Amino acid sequence: MAAAAPPPPPSAAPEPSMAPPETTPIGHPVFTRIRLAIPSDVPFIHKLIHQMAVFERLTHLFSATESSLSSNLFLSPPFHSFTIFLLELSSSPIPPLLSPSPSFTPIEKTFNFDIPLNDPESDAFSIYYGNQQVIIGGFVLFFPNYSTFLGKPGFYVEDLFVRECYRRKGFGKMLLSAVAKQAVKMGYGRVEWVVLDWNVNAITFYEQMGATVLPEWRICRLTGDALQAYQNANV
Amino acid sequence: MAAAAPPPPPSAAPEPSMAPPETTPIGHPVFTRIRLAIPSDVPFIHKLIHQMAVFERLTHLFSATESSLSSNLFLSPPFHSFTIFLLELSSSPIPPLLSPSPSFTPIEKTFNFDIPLNDPESDAFSIYYGNQQVIIGGFVLFFPNYSTFLGKPGFYVEDLFVRECYRRKGFGKMLLSAVAKQAVKMGYGRVEWVVLDWNVNAITFYEQMGATVLPEWRICRLTGDALQAYQNANV
Repeated sequence: MAAAAPPPPPSAAPEPSMAPPETTPIGHPVFTRIRLAIPSDVPFIHKLIHQMAVFERLTHLFSATESSLSSNLFLSPPFHSFTIFLLELSSSPIPPLLSPSPSFTPIEKTFNFDIPLNDPESDAFSIYYGNQQVIIGGFVLFFPNYSTFLGKPGFYVEDLFVRECYRRKGFGKMLLSAVAKQAVKMGYGRVEWVVLDWNVNAITFYEQMGATVLPEWRICRLTGDALQAYQNANV
Repeated sequence: MAAAAPPPPPSAAPEPSMAPPETTPIGHPVFTRIRLAIPSDVPFIHKLIHQMAVFERLTHLFSATESSLSSNLFLSPPFHSFTIFLLELSSSPIPPLLSPSPSFTPIEKTFNFDIPLNDPESDAFSIYYGNQQVIIGGFVLFFPNYSTFLGKPGFYVEDLFVRECYRRKGFGKMLLSAVAKQAVKMGYGRVEWVVLDWNVNAITFYEQMGATVLPEWRICRLTGDALQAYQNANV
């Protein structure tokens, strides 16, 4: 995949005569896989979360470290607590996992794009399976929540993030539907997440996929000094 | 506690001469305890959730059964997944638990009220420790969530409910602060929940306790047929 390698310097551009004739477009296949994240993925996860904080202009709230992520993730079997799906991309079919999780069969899908995906950060997000370079393109972090009215669990999606150069290609939908599929498989009743009320594009996208945006509920958060103080409200 | 027994019929009312003199008010002590719920509490939990649905005029969304609750709760150690604290009330000191959880030391507090609490449903919410009647007055259900920006978990409070006859006495605050205390104990960064935007009294209450109400976030929910359909978005 073109996206998996740094863009060639101008001097390496192919001669015009080497380009395929316009009447026979070849296309650029992108092989993708959604798999469970594992502890060795933490450096990628940390970088992805930081990019998300930059995108949301919330870096002042970002204090996660690789160490804090490592100590809090992967403590429970997948889907029973905090769970991460990673999106992998490659220009070639992605080799099977050497140690697949019994809890989840990776989801694979092949895309074909008219132009190559140009990934300026491919080196920073590369994994090698043998000689084959595979790129981490995004992630979704989710965990069980519980509806007392339904009397059963659902999944709450805390983060869904696709790196900038891979957006508007259907990868976000692929990650979110993987969560929906897992929810149905487990007999769960809901998948929920939050959206900013001014993000009209996102709201339209979610409504088109069949989600309901609840207009009346507001999130309350107790944190920092107020949390410290309130713990002693009983004393 | 008067609340623990059905109100006496008028014929059983004490003679006026038996009442204490008005100059020496005695008060009505209420001994309370917050403890972890256990599987045998499910019938109480089911009734409490149903009362909550009635209060919120959402019984059309209520489909939980004792069976569904039993099959989905108590599957993980306390605090690692869905966790319930119950509020117990009694007119006498509550006996210690025979099998206390190593994960949580019950929180006890004694209140003193000017008038007895009248509980018309005390029979339906009674537990007996030996001969001593103890009343289930409310519950809070919560579970871990995760902040990727903080790189650590928090608690999400799904439900906080105090039965009608025990409201506006500080019991809700007692339940919520027990969750805050547990969050701090575990090094968690946040406690979060949701509130309806028209519930001004609740919002004022939460803001006074130091919580922030986030104005811009909206909950998105994918459920029912739309969830079933979306799981196949990758195909």
